[in-house]
Amino acid sequence: MTTGAFEAAATAVSRLDGVAADEAAALHDRLTKPRGALGRLEPLGVRLAAIAGANPPPVPTPAAVAVFAGDHGVLEQGVSPWPREVTAQMVANFAAGGAAINVLARQIGASVTVVDVGVATDIADAAGVLDRRVRRGTADLTVGPAMSEDEARAALDVGAGIAADLVAGGARSLVTGEMGIGNTTPAATLIAACTGRPAVDVTGRGTGVDDDTLGHKIAVVAAALALHADAVGRGALPTLAAVGGLEHAALAGFVVGGAAARVPVVVDGVIADAALLVAERLVPGVVDFCLAGHRSSEPGAAAALEHLGLEPLLELDLRLGEGTGACLALPLIEAAARVLREMATFDSAGVSDKAE
Amino acid sequence: MTTGAFEAAATAVSRLDGVAADEAAALHDRLTKPRGALGRLEPLGVRLAAIAGANPPPVPTPAAVAVFAGDHGVLEQGVSPWPREVTAQMVANFAAGGAAINVLARQIGASVTVVDVGVATDIADAAGVLDRRVRRGTADLTVGPAMSEDEARAALDVGAGIAADLVAGGARSLVTGEMGIGNTTPAATLIAACTGRPAVDVTGRGTGVDDDTLGHKIAVVAAALALHADAVGRGALPTLAAVGGLEHAALAGFVVGGAAARVPVVVDGVIADAALLVAERLVPGVVDFCLAGHRSSEPGAAAALEHLGLEPLLELDLRLGEGTGACLALPLIEAAARVLREMATFDSAGVSDKAE
Repeated sequence: MTTGAFEAAATAVSRLDGVAADEAAALHDRLTKPRGALGRLEPLGVRLAAIAGANPPPVPTPAAVAVFAGDHGVLEQGVSPWPREVTAQMVANFAAGGAAINVLARQIGASVTVVDVGVATDIADAAGVLDRRVRRGTADLTVGPAMSEDEARAALDVGAGIAADLVAGGARSLVTGEMGIGNTTPAATLIAACTGRPAVDVTGRGTGVDDDTLGHKIAVVAAALALHADAVGRGALPTLAAVGGLEHAALAGFVVGGAAARVPVVVDGVIADAALLVAERLVPGVVDFCLAGHRSSEPGAAAALEHLGLEPLLELDLRLGEGTGACLALPLIEAAARVLREMATFDSAGVSDKAE
Repeated sequence: MTTGAFEAAATAVSRLDGVAADEAAALHDRLTKPRGALGRLEPLGVRLAAIAGANPPPVPTPAAVAVFAGDHGVLEQGVSPWPREVTAQMVANFAAGGAAINVLARQIGASVTVVDVGVATDIADAAGVLDRRVRRGTADLTVGPAMSEDEARAALDVGAGIAADLVAGGARSLVTGEMGIGNTTPAATLIAACTGRPAVDVTGRGTGVDDDTLGHKIAVVAAALALHADAVGRGALPTLAAVGGLEHAALAGFVVGGAAARVPVVVDGVIADAALLVAERLVPGVVDFCLAGHRSSEPGAAAALEHLGLEPLLELDLRLGEGTGACLALPLIEAAARVLREMATFDSAGVSDKAE
């Protein structure tokens, strides 16, 4: 990991480029189509120009997906029907190229970087997995803090460092990915803590719990909020350490790293949404560099996106994570840039404009 | 044009393959993800298997876009702020590669075939445009039938023939595209005629009419429905001839041609939705081979899709047509096939399944 990577990135985050945005909006009105007829693709293209500081904006490919994996002490509370070992098994599956995120990333020509930031058990075949393990899974957040603030900082550094490395390696957009059995429970707790919503509003079925387990999970989140009320009151970093996960922390750092590099960060599901809430409290303004790939069917996702003012591009009832929904949205983002770069104007094509 | 192409295609349309669909659904449950976690991508993959009659389904690329262009006598009634010449100018723009559909098709590696099925004015540079002109634009449907039934049949043949040619040339999915200044008025009339909805529910602003013109346009549609009530009562072909457009007719034939070839037909906006309503009345069951790319912001689109039982993949407030929304949806369809073809299973990856 790169000590200080997060602080360096946080300092480097600046503002959107309003001039480039205005130029992109004006260009849209000269392209051979009725004004506004490309709907949400048009403000999306304007945002890409504002992020890059250039009109037309660069094509946001190749994209790079980073999948941060971690385990969760709260799994002891029975919040998931999946055994803890599945985190390590899925990490091996990512490294072997057989998971959904591998398939969807390959389709769009994106790289997949698998990062162990806190897996608890051994990974059978760790070749191809970046070892950035801060600790072997978090502690049970219903008993005490999930991790120390130093550990949270270390995970923020991991994420920011990976973002910087990927952009240095040629990535023109970043996609948030994650894996961690049990990680929707800390995500719901973070979302409740950051938005002020009650546990019942932001806690969902994750990868498939039944009614009884959902009720229990809501109670676990509510209890964690009560236990850690002081930490939540003290700010974003204490909140992250108390009720977050190592992959949530790494994702928060990753988002800030992407914003610092002025590349669009495509945010996936509820885990990334929770991480972005934390990132935005740590470094206000990073959300401007983020695009919400989709609205996960987890209720916390909608709550987080609404709080952040992000309108997701897709709504396909996805609840897998890994970065899958963000990968699926990437062609739309690419299209928004290509429209501004490649379409003819009324003048250049000799097409008559609408009568006024 | 290929005389008889439509009848040949209509005869060849068969049913979805239920066995392949069941196999795809069963395969989804063995892939390394929680069951159902890929949301709408999963039934989409099942549908692709049912269309192709194979599990896993073939990857639906390369796609082929056909853009059918025509003009409309009803433009005399002042239903659009754009001059009629823009149809021919945009056809030249398509042929030159500068329109939105060219940009979006290039991004996904799809071909664009531009077909003049009824443009009224001369095309400045017609190189690269297929001349399948049935007549130079339709007649004004507020005065009499837009075309004869023979002309409607000829346009159906054009569409079905193009579909067959594109599939023979290697296309693994078809995308409906169109261009025709004024063509949202016949689309609204067809949708009202086929769904029984009143003109006010299905008539929209098209490429941007103001409030006064919208009111006038609704009155035009209502008057056309009253004038042609007999034709509408006689069936789909008389309806198409009385109130349709040449590109609507060609698109209806194109959809049937795609269904006959058992490739997915990705349906774009309100014009294609109207054409599909006609196609489904002419050849019941073709809708099963169609996927709705997006829900256009035109009100008739939602009415048509609801009537057809199609749930669109995207909702991005697009109202451009040309095939743009369908092209944008194609990567989602490709992803649905690739998931079934490329993901590891729990067994193959050595990943533990969820506890029961």
